Amino acid sequence: MDKLKRRIIDEGQVLSDDVVRVDSFLNQRIDPDFMVEMANEFGLHFNMNNVSLILTVESSGIALASICAQRYSIPMVFVKKGKSSNMDSELYQCDIFSYTYKKPVTLCVSKYLIAPHDRILIIDDFIANGEVVSGLCKIINMAGATLVGVGCAIEKGFQKGGKWLRDQGIDVKSLAIIEKISSGGIFFKND
Amino acid sequence: MDKLKRRIIDEGQVLSDDVVRVDSFLNQRIDPDFMVEMANEFGLHFNMNNVSLILTVESSGIALASICAQRYSIPMVFVKKGKSSNMDSELYQCDIFSYTYKKPVTLCVSKYLIAPHDRILIIDDFIANGEVVSGLCKIINMAGATLVGVGCAIEKGFQKGGKWLRDQGIDVKSLAIIEKISSGGIFFKND
Repeated sequence: MDKLKRRIIDEGQVLSDDVVRVDSFLNQRIDPDFMVEMANEFGLHFNMNNVSLILTVESSGIALASICAQRYSIPMVFVKKGKSSNMDSELYQCDIFSYTYKKPVTLCVSKYLIAPHDRILIIDDFIANGEVVSGLCKIINMAGATLVGVGCAIEKGFQKGGKWLRDQGIDVKSLAIIEKISSGGIFFKND
Repeated sequence: MDKLKRRIIDEGQVLSDDVVRVDSFLNQRIDPDFMVEMANEFGLHFNMNNVSLILTVESSGIALASICAQRYSIPMVFVKKGKSSNMDSELYQCDIFSYTYKKPVTLCVSKYLIAPHDRILIIDDFIANGEVVSGLCKIINMAGATLVGVGCAIEKGFQKGGKWLRDQGIDVKSLAIIEKISSGGIFFKND
């Protein structure tokens, strides 16, 4: 998606050779009209009529997932990182390591929110090492539901997540795949 | 908003005399079409042409805020609870006590995401003691921006937050105000 690549180049802040901050339009501030354009791109790749539930994880995936949910009138569930006092006691849980927070986190979702007949599209803002998506896939398996695919805004192609998911036969659509981040610029894989 | 009250009665799970869980349509699973209806209600109360930014806090406010943002083509910023490694070093911060997590949390947002000329509508899922909204108001003050009002889905009218905010002259629109939660049912303030 050329417009996304352009915004990453124009607005992204390179923090290191593996981190680019895109707070200004994706992670902390969202541009809703642009998010609808991203949702449209996912609709060109996935058959949204075949999706009964959009699944994401808190926090930065929720905005994009919500707008995709609204665009296609599909319910959305977000998995929490850690259990809060208000959650149901019947949970699907999966431990992962969060590279963002540099610590282990437990993905949690109330069992009754995912049904065995659900056909699930995972939506997230980033794929890097694939830990989060892998955790979501395990939860989908626990629920006996079906994974339709994974849509993400930005994939870090130099990290293992995207390849690892595709090697398992999972349909992964990333709107921009970054091949390299350096002081000389941000370089993308061609579509 | 009668439809919201009806869903709280039909789908809410009373956990105690001050907590009702509404995971199935507001907090963890979202029904996007219903969220658009909630966004429409906010549009009847607030002049959305006078709003330049929607502000919320992670995580459960993000879905409703995103769909309001999309409904009115207004950018949205969500404030984080705690600093992650990817955040800018120039932050507005405010310490609050989270009743959900039973611990102090620090609200954080990168300074460059809120401008002094911004006219801000706060959107959140719940108002209870008003700690979160109060923290957001302090951040808006730090940024030199203007608060237009506060829109929330469910206000716990038996806790102090809503009254405290209105006593300060803040325009608070809650789509449903719960007066009492008991084993005999959930009782609402009349509109």
